[in-house]
Amino acid sequence: MSRIVVQKFGGSSVADVEKIKKVAAKVKARRDEGWQVVVVVSAMGDTTDELLALAKKVSPNPPRRELDMLLTCGERISMALMSMALQEQGVEAISFTGSQSGIITDTAHSQARIIEVKPARIEEELGKGKVVIVAGYQGVSKAREVTTLGRGGSDTSAVALAAALSADCEIYSDVDGVFTADPRVVPSAQKLESLTHEEMQELASAGAKVLNAQAVEFAREKGIVIHARSTHTAGTGTAIQSRSGGGRVKGVTCEKDVWVLAASGAPDALLELLDAQAVKGRNLLFDEAGRTLVVVPTQDLHGPEALKAKLPAGVTVLDGCATVTCVGTGLNSDWTVARKAHATARGLGAKVAATYTSALQLTLVVEHQQVTALTKALHEALIG
Amino acid sequence: MSRIVVQKFGGSSVADVEKIKKVAAKVKARRDEGWQVVVVVSAMGDTTDELLALAKKVSPNPPRRELDMLLTCGERISMALMSMALQEQGVEAISFTGSQSGIITDTAHSQARIIEVKPARIEEELGKGKVVIVAGYQGVSKAREVTTLGRGGSDTSAVALAAALSADCEIYSDVDGVFTADPRVVPSAQKLESLTHEEMQELASAGAKVLNAQAVEFAREKGIVIHARSTHTAGTGTAIQSRSGGGRVKGVTCEKDVWVLAASGAPDALLELLDAQAVKGRNLLFDEAGRTLVVVPTQDLHGPEALKAKLPAGVTVLDGCATVTCVGTGLNSDWTVARKAHATARGLGAKVAATYTSALQLTLVVEHQQVTALTKALHEALIG
Repeated sequence: MSRIVVQKFGGSSVADVEKIKKVAAKVKARRDEGWQVVVVVSAMGDTTDELLALAKKVSPNPPRRELDMLLTCGERISMALMSMALQEQGVEAISFTGSQSGIITDTAHSQARIIEVKPARIEEELGKGKVVIVAGYQGVSKAREVTTLGRGGSDTSAVALAAALSADCEIYSDVDGVFTADPRVVPSAQKLESLTHEEMQELASAGAKVLNAQAVEFAREKGIVIHARSTHTAGTGTAIQSRSGGGRVKGVTCEKDVWVLAASGAPDALLELLDAQAVKGRNLLFDEAGRTLVVVPTQDLHGPEALKAKLPAGVTVLDGCATVTCVGTGLNSDWTVARKAHATARGLGAKVAATYTSALQLTLVVEHQQVTALTKALHEALIG
Repeated sequence: MSRIVVQKFGGSSVADVEKIKKVAAKVKARRDEGWQVVVVVSAMGDTTDELLALAKKVSPNPPRRELDMLLTCGERISMALMSMALQEQGVEAISFTGSQSGIITDTAHSQARIIEVKPARIEEELGKGKVVIVAGYQGVSKAREVTTLGRGGSDTSAVALAAALSADCEIYSDVDGVFTADPRVVPSAQKLESLTHEEMQELASAGAKVLNAQAVEFAREKGIVIHARSTHTAGTGTAIQSRSGGGRVKGVTCEKDVWVLAASGAPDALLELLDAQAVKGRNLLFDEAGRTLVVVPTQDLHGPEALKAKLPAGVTVLDGCATVTCVGTGLNSDWTVARKAHATARGLGAKVAATYTSALQLTLVVEHQQVTALTKALHEALIG
């Protein structure tokens, strides 16, 4: 029996009809090598943002259940067109929604988590020799409600399917793999041959756009190796796996727009509010004044202005912040990296509002306008 | 218990965000009168055509199963936005896909027929006091495949739901009701207070765009009265019901672009081909040369050029034709109408390629360029 590969193509890889045809040719080539291929697609280009803008015109704070109904159309359009493109190239293909693919999630609209994958229909169609196209980013709850997995959720769809099908997992984008920093910010950034799931998780949750953090967590749990590759070139990309070599600091990344919510006294009311709004704070920490700080990327806030209006007493918002994060296994086993990082920030005159470290990362919270210079300087100082 | 009404709004009634908000206000007003409301929506404006154009760029003859996956996004976008608009106006609402609404169809992709409606989820939400928004034009087969009901299928969705819910049925469009002819073609056309289901079926299948023929057939079978009304005004519109008054000829309508497929000898091979392609011929007749003629609206042909290439020997195509149809109960009980119609055509110098009549209609097949003048002249001669 031939092996199965799950190939995920992001929005910019399927942004128009010509690009869809090119991806179809790439998929066909893989199938012609004897592989059974499952293709996971995102929405075309800016479709998701356009649908979101339409929703905002109707309602400044649209109900999430309806937003999920709306946004899932994006992937559905891509998958149908991809299937047509493959069939036009003589490859038998069939597209499935998240629901038809058996991707069962919890009921948290807009940020659902996959709880089970029942790929019976996919396996049946693969068995008939078809390429199966799956709409990324979406699933269905046990109450048969359509859900979405949050931004970048198509990566999670791909990993979950690879795990359920015991398949290889390849995630394609416009870049050659995972870099030590965003090459647009740090021109000297280098491609990594490999890194660990944990390192990738930290990079992704600290702002690196190349792979989705939940997807990597899923891959780690299931022991799946993710190959991050370029849609346009034939390189081997970067392998995200359980072990990796190389230096201590694997990458430097930043999140350019975050809120820091600071609660003086007991933070329970704040945490309860965030929980009710399904806002997943990236980090929780305590600053020198004894306040609890929650750092949240602004894009993860649903209706930021509405949230501001509901904030409990004693909670203040620092908006216009940014984070710069260094990622590497064992970063907190000594203080070398932390000392170098603070010295670098001081050298730039960047005021550090808060710092936090874990076994895998060190993050500095700074003002928005410092973020690019500090990212470059930390890359230079810690990776070179 | 309050009564249920199913209100269907077509594509031009929900063409943009402002129009969606206006329809939401209209729905809210009805609900505030104490009705339980189910809203069936079509795709916004030209969305379906735009999606179809996208598909044609990928494949000149896209597979219908994938086309259904693609096109159903149109109604899904509308329904989510309509639900958001209602909630924004303080009305509790929830949207359902065809599948979630329990609209079960056969497996004929792109021209599926509804075989059963199981509105349990709709009834449950109505019971909670919510307005339920349903995506028109779509259903799901027993094999859980997404299907569409063909152009105008949202009307069918509305009627089927009204039947299943024992509800009133109102179909809204940009016009005040059903007219004796298209007012853009015949300025003297008058609005009808009522007509029978059978008369409406004939008008619709002969090209009148106001209501879908399958929808009217469904309403007739189930004994549902359809109220065709304007989205923009408060008139009572036209009732389509089991009995009607008025003169013998109720309306004159035309289909501007049809193919006449002519088979000399046994027509079996032609019919088999049309059957395999799920092309529903509008009429089958025999001309004076003993040929079998099948008249098909060009828009119902899937890949006309591909079909031409496959035509069996002995079959010729007359394209560039048009039909003009007079509708009224008992039209063939004497020859008055037929004689007047032929005299009218002769007076215009229009060559009649074929004629056919039934209990409810009389149709002339003419060349495309004669269609407008003949429609006007027949309306003048038979209705006034």
